[in-house]
Amino acid sequence: MPLTPLTDELWHSIRREAQAASEEEPALASFYHATLLNHDSFASAMSFHLANKLDSQAVPAMMIREVFEAAMAESPEIESAMRADIYAHCERDPACEKYSTPFLFFKGFHALQSYRFAHHLWLKGRRGLALYLQNQISEAFGVDIHPGARIGSGIMIDHATGVVIGETAVIGNDVSMLHSVTLGGAGRLSGDRHPKVGRGVLISTGAKILGNIDIGDCAKIGAGSVVLHPVPPHTTVAGVPARVVGHPKGDVPARDMDQGLNGTDSD
Amino acid sequence: MPLTPLTDELWHSIRREAQAASEEEPALASFYHATLLNHDSFASAMSFHLANKLDSQAVPAMMIREVFEAAMAESPEIESAMRADIYAHCERDPACEKYSTPFLFFKGFHALQSYRFAHHLWLKGRRGLALYLQNQISEAFGVDIHPGARIGSGIMIDHATGVVIGETAVIGNDVSMLHSVTLGGAGRLSGDRHPKVGRGVLISTGAKILGNIDIGDCAKIGAGSVVLHPVPPHTTVAGVPARVVGHPKGDVPARDMDQGLNGTDSD
Amino acid sequence: MPLTPLTDELWHSIRREAQAASEEEPALASFYHATLLNHDSFASAMSFHLANKLDSQAVPAMMIREVFEAAMAESPEIESAMRADIYAHCERDPACEKYSTPFLFFKGFHALQSYRFAHHLWLKGRRGLALYLQNQISEAFGVDIHPGARIGSGIMIDHATGVVIGETAVIGNDVSMLHSVTLGGAGRLSGDRHPKVGRGVLISTGAKILGNIDIGDCAKIGAGSVVLHPVPPHTTVAGVPARVVGHPKGDVPARDMDQGLNGTDSD
Amino acid sequence: MPLTPLTDELWHSIRREAQAASEEEPALASFYHATLLNHDSFASAMSFHLANKLDSQAVPAMMIREVFEAAMAESPEIESAMRADIYAHCERDPACEKYSTPFLFFKGFHALQSYRFAHHLWLKGRRGLALYLQNQISEAFGVDIHPGARIGSGIMIDHATGVVIGETAVIGNDVSMLHSVTLGGAGRLSGDRHPKVGRGVLISTGAKILGNIDIGDCAKIGAGSVVLHPVPPHTTVAGVPARVVGHPKGDVPARDMDQGLNGTDSD
Amino acid sequence: MPLTPLTDELWHSIRREAQAASEEEPALASFYHATLLNHDSFASAMSFHLANKLDSQAVPAMMIREVFEAAMAESPEIESAMRADIYAHCERDPACEKYSTPFLFFKGFHALQSYRFAHHLWLKGRRGLALYLQNQISEAFGVDIHPGARIGSGIMIDHATGVVIGETAVIGNDVSMLHSVTLGGAGRLSGDRHPKVGRGVLISTGAKILGNIDIGDCAKIGAGSVVLHPVPPHTTVAGVPARVVGHPKGDVPARDMDQGLNGTDSD
Amino acid sequence: MPLTPLTDELWHSIRREAQAASEEEPALASFYHATLLNHDSFASAMSFHLANKLDSQAVPAMMIREVFEAAMAESPEIESAMRADIYAHCERDPACEKYSTPFLFFKGFHALQSYRFAHHLWLKGRRGLALYLQNQISEAFGVDIHPGARIGSGIMIDHATGVVIGETAVIGNDVSMLHSVTLGGAGRLSGDRHPKVGRGVLISTGAKILGNIDIGDCAKIGAGSVVLHPVPPHTTVAGVPARVVGHPKGDVPARDMDQGLNGTDSD
Repeated sequence: MPLTPLTDELWHSIRREAQAASEEEPALASFYHATLLNHDSFASAMSFHLANKLDSQAVPAMMIREVFEAAMAESPEIESAMRADIYAHCERDPACEKYSTPFLFFKGFHALQSYRFAHHLWLKGRRGLALYLQNQISEAFGVDIHPGARIGSGIMIDHATGVVIGETAVIGNDVSMLHSVTLGGAGRLSGDRHPKVGRGVLISTGAKILGNIDIGDCAKIGAGSVVLHPVPPHTTVAGVPARVVGHPKGDVPARDMDQGLNGTDSD
Repeated sequence: MPLTPLTDELWHSIRREAQAASEEEPALASFYHATLLNHDSFASAMSFHLANKLDSQAVPAMMIREVFEAAMAESPEIESAMRADIYAHCERDPACEKYSTPFLFFKGFHALQSYRFAHHLWLKGRRGLALYLQNQISEAFGVDIHPGARIGSGIMIDHATGVVIGETAVIGNDVSMLHSVTLGGAGRLSGDRHPKVGRGVLISTGAKILGNIDIGDCAKIGAGSVVLHPVPPHTTVAGVPARVVGHPKGDVPARDMDQGLNGTDSD
Repeated sequence: MPLTPLTDELWHSIRREAQAASEEEPALASFYHATLLNHDSFASAMSFHLANKLDSQAVPAMMIREVFEAAMAESPEIESAMRADIYAHCERDPACEKYSTPFLFFKGFHALQSYRFAHHLWLKGRRGLALYLQNQISEAFGVDIHPGARIGSGIMIDHATGVVIGETAVIGNDVSMLHSVTLGGAGRLSGDRHPKVGRGVLISTGAKILGNIDIGDCAKIGAGSVVLHPVPPHTTVAGVPARVVGHPKGDVPARDMDQGLNGTDSD
Repeated sequence: MPLTPLTDELWHSIRREAQAASEEEPALASFYHATLLNHDSFASAMSFHLANKLDSQAVPAMMIREVFEAAMAESPEIESAMRADIYAHCERDPACEKYSTPFLFFKGFHALQSYRFAHHLWLKGRRGLALYLQNQISEAFGVDIHPGARIGSGIMIDHATGVVIGETAVIGNDVSMLHSVTLGGAGRLSGDRHPKVGRGVLISTGAKILGNIDIGDCAKIGAGSVVLHPVPPHTTVAGVPARVVGHPKGDVPARDMDQGLNGTDSD
Repeated sequence: MPLTPLTDELWHSIRREAQAASEEEPALASFYHATLLNHDSFASAMSFHLANKLDSQAVPAMMIREVFEAAMAESPEIESAMRADIYAHCERDPACEKYSTPFLFFKGFHALQSYRFAHHLWLKGRRGLALYLQNQISEAFGVDIHPGARIGSGIMIDHATGVVIGETAVIGNDVSMLHSVTLGGAGRLSGDRHPKVGRGVLISTGAKILGNIDIGDCAKIGAGSVVLHPVPPHTTVAGVPARVVGHPKGDVPARDMDQGLNGTDSD
Repeated sequence: MPLTPLTDELWHSIRREAQAASEEEPALASFYHATLLNHDSFASAMSFHLANKLDSQAVPAMMIREVFEAAMAESPEIESAMRADIYAHCERDPACEKYSTPFLFFKGFHALQSYRFAHHLWLKGRRGLALYLQNQISEAFGVDIHPGARIGSGIMIDHATGVVIGETAVIGNDVSMLHSVTLGGAGRLSGDRHPKVGRGVLISTGAKILGNIDIGDCAKIGAGSVVLHPVPPHTTVAGVPARVVGHPKGDVPARDMDQGLNGTDSD
């Protein structure tokens, strides 16, 4: 049964939070209304908020929003993934106490959702518009995700500045990564040349994973690592170049968000 | 005795520099007047300049400036820290020959001063507005400082893109750091989970310090290091993961800005 | 014989691409016309596009463009370098299939070309305007290139977020670098304090080269490396701190864009 | 049978004209694409164009357009009237050679169509938004039409600056008026207090019609007249105060657009 | 006893109206908050709203507002006159049912209040800024009031487009005028050359009063009249040129707003 | 001998005035620099100032300025007429004490100069762009001049709101007119249908001249008149409809700016 405004619990929670916040902080009441309270659905508010961040002199926000609304109507999985990403933030990030916080304020979240639209356009062959969006996302948020990349749902990109994800990268569900992470290519070859990241993986700050290599489910990549070889599932790697240093303590490192290498990790 | 416009030497120097620069470069005369020469105090010019960089469709510059001016009136230590930061830049950065240069042109300086306002709001319980500012600072400058972090004065954040400082981080006075530095958490735990950095510390480009660990006074963190354990005072660490490699040559590494590891450092 | 609009093959190709793209994608037709099709020369379109990205409240795009047009008229080598950079992108980047793509959409390209104007102004003693541009480039693109740096032609800065290049750095022709690369100083000394990079060098993601050291022609710097010592020609270095790990497989690593360390590299 | 994009002759003509104009005048190609060629229906283009002219800091164009699109979907007579107004312009105005000209360039047309939306909102009880629009229309176009006024279709308001139409005014179909025309009240009384203008009437430049009086079908009001008493059908009045001076030469003065008083008029 | 936010009944009424309107009309909630609900005094809201309407590329809203706030602090009679003007609107205009309506939506009110600031600057010898404001007011509202004119309080300028008031004009308290009214000079002479209008006068739509002539208290000027000679108190004039046609029915024509010439008027 | 920046007395005067004004009024220093002091010629400053007032979402100021600069280079008589118009203002308007005042602040002057560009484009067959400008001029200044009209030099349009000048109107040199003046057509006929106004004519506030009729040299048209028949030279007409009322006292009524009808006028 599809969500309706009446049965949409996430949207209701976000609105309730915004209503309360708007009463507490008059300086932002105008912002909460324009961005959330004035809209009658999650999709309407999301397309409005992102379009405002991605417009330019010659491509006005109105036009971008039109494209985003059409995409969400045509591909309902875009909105599903957005919702899963919000839940992921609130579950994994101690600094995220409300559903409205990533929606309104986290640029990693904004960059990822904007990519979802660019990816939709890429699949439909609208490459010029997808590249335009990639550039605007990179200017606005400092995050460069090629619209050809395939990214699952339940994703958190924390802090986000400097993240780069290449054209043939694949990222499974429930992955967490931090700022300055690179999923890059190795070589001028075209074709399949970027990492394949399994589900539940945690990629710590500044890690660089290069080339068409597999990162197994629930692996953990240490901060500042340079990963040039495949990583088995449930394995922790670290260093430049990265070597196996142990195994993540929890089942799903993406959920624990532990960038440290203590205990079982560094056995 | 509080500073008045008549006794405020820093403000007079900045204005004199701007007056001269405005006569030398007609293309910027308009900019120097709007940003500096039109104002009658350091606080008025600073709040004007930063508000212009942090506004958005629904939160106009006028409203942000009002909040900033109220904060400076209520907490004089904000302006004191800003002034100490300007002196720090001119003392430590060979590319900084004028007091007006960081004020006008250094985004690390702009990000830090904007954080000072967000921190003030955070302490007063205005969390929504503090988070709004954190997001605008991250979009505008590529610097993500949680408004809950506590940061001293005499701070220089050079180049600044990619800097991330977490909610429970503490930074002492007279610290220098460069771009891509992370003071991050290690784990999903809430509570006190970020580094505590002593005074006079130099944190080189791309260093990542993770977890609630102490970095002793006047320590030096090598470029690209990943620091997962406490660092004693007057000690140099480097590497992934970071190990002790020596001691800084000078007394206060933050002042020397020597990211190299030669001489005493690498004994 | 100077190029004229009639004999300018690159400009004709860019326009043809834009014409075709504009017909394929109505949502961007307005953008293609304003940015490319409305102009009668490469210089006119370039100055228009960049000025739109670098303006601010008090320094309008019109004024910036005037400065850029005067610079291109006075120093024809600016435009020559821009053209060589476009060819470099199309030759080295598998994701770049059209000449118009870097022109329109790659922020590393935009940052570099904007720097070329700032450098021109720096050489003419217009330091205030050069610093203004440096700051706008850093805010807009997350790339901080000091206007005093000297950079050759045929340069590609891929993805670009977080790149920092210091005042006395020198970069030869045909160099490629990726995001988060630093060519930084080591110490508070003024004077010549930044790296000298030879021609054909590839500097991989996140590498930090610190101090006035030579990087020999066609060297390759591994991802995430911290380079504190000179690197001989045709040599690959990697690690924190960087050590020699082999030799690049191809003659010109900047062209191969292979950030991996396989084969001859890691012998 | 409702119009579809395929059967919509007016829309096709407007697009053909814009396509040709866009090829003739590169400086406007971007404008023609953004305003007309990028849209797939008359309603989409009209709501886009007008919303861009009526936005403000706190009420962005996107939000206005949303309201306009909903109105056109709910009340198809809005679009019918807009189309009749375009035909009226092309039939009556020698300076109007294309259907796209009033659509793109005539502020009397823009003001009238914007009023049509405000009137729709007024009827639905959304008085605040209707008053907001009335104010924006008056600022943007210098035309002040109360949203409560009732206005037919096939209307031309030529040049338009200074036109004022009061709350209880009624205007029949096929009326033409020029700039500085007032349909005003006479007295502080609320209730029905403004003129009732029949069909086919021509109201010349600067004429003032005051009070709840009838202007008969196909009457003609001379330039600069002050009309305080009813005017019979097919009658010409002129002067301050206005007196009967004859009869219009043609059957429908609004179509002839003859502001002169020669021949039969001044018998 | 000065008004405080607690005892300021007008301000409380305006806020209550805006609060209610904001709940009724979500599309304007953002506007009501930014313009009214976010402010803690009448003066703060008024200076914010007007500054937003009068800014330009090189004179940002923030700077204009600063000037307006200083003027209101220095000359409390500015705010008193603004308040009297609001009461005048609500008393005289049947279309004005709320105190917030002229504040938010009537451009005649906005033009007049903006003039009050320009006049304050003129008296202080800041002629350049006064002329800048005169020009912005004329562009934004179509109302051209020379900053040297002297205008009382309790003034209503209804609809307002095309109103022109010259440098040496004087207008008493409780005057009403409509759009297209001119208080103009007659001749190239400098010095005192514009009309002197007594209290309570009603100047109907399009009336032109030219030269240094007295319009007596509670006189009434007919629509479209051209007045070249003095008018005695309590007298109605009309026509081109204007002649005495009777006496106003009520004691204060400005309150009755009866532009008609019936009954006693035309005896 | 053409003017050069060194021999251009008017431009030097304007700059001197702006320099002095900028020192007197810090709040406008930024404006004076951006608009005047930053430019090296009259043409550069004029094209900058007007382009800023006429831009829109899809036609940026940069593009408009390019068109204006090309027009001034191609047709030097445009600039000559602009200069004569400035002298006319300073000679005829007691409120105009500086050459920079009409340049910076008089919207009648801005509208007229903008028309001069539209007329240039009209003559070259660029009708779309000419109509675009006509619309922007009408929105920005409330002045609607058809680009086909032919207008001499030494023209003053005072206050200007509501002025309308039709396609086939012709206006000689040294004419003055005030706001709300109409030079309109009479009838739906295309072809030559608007007034021909001789040199030195004064057209007072609100006068309407309709049809292809001659207004003789140095005639004077009374305020609020409706002129439907030719007017002989050196003759004053007034009334609705206009009749001969005498002769202007001075030789060139446009210079005397006496809208009154005293003395010789009303014999």
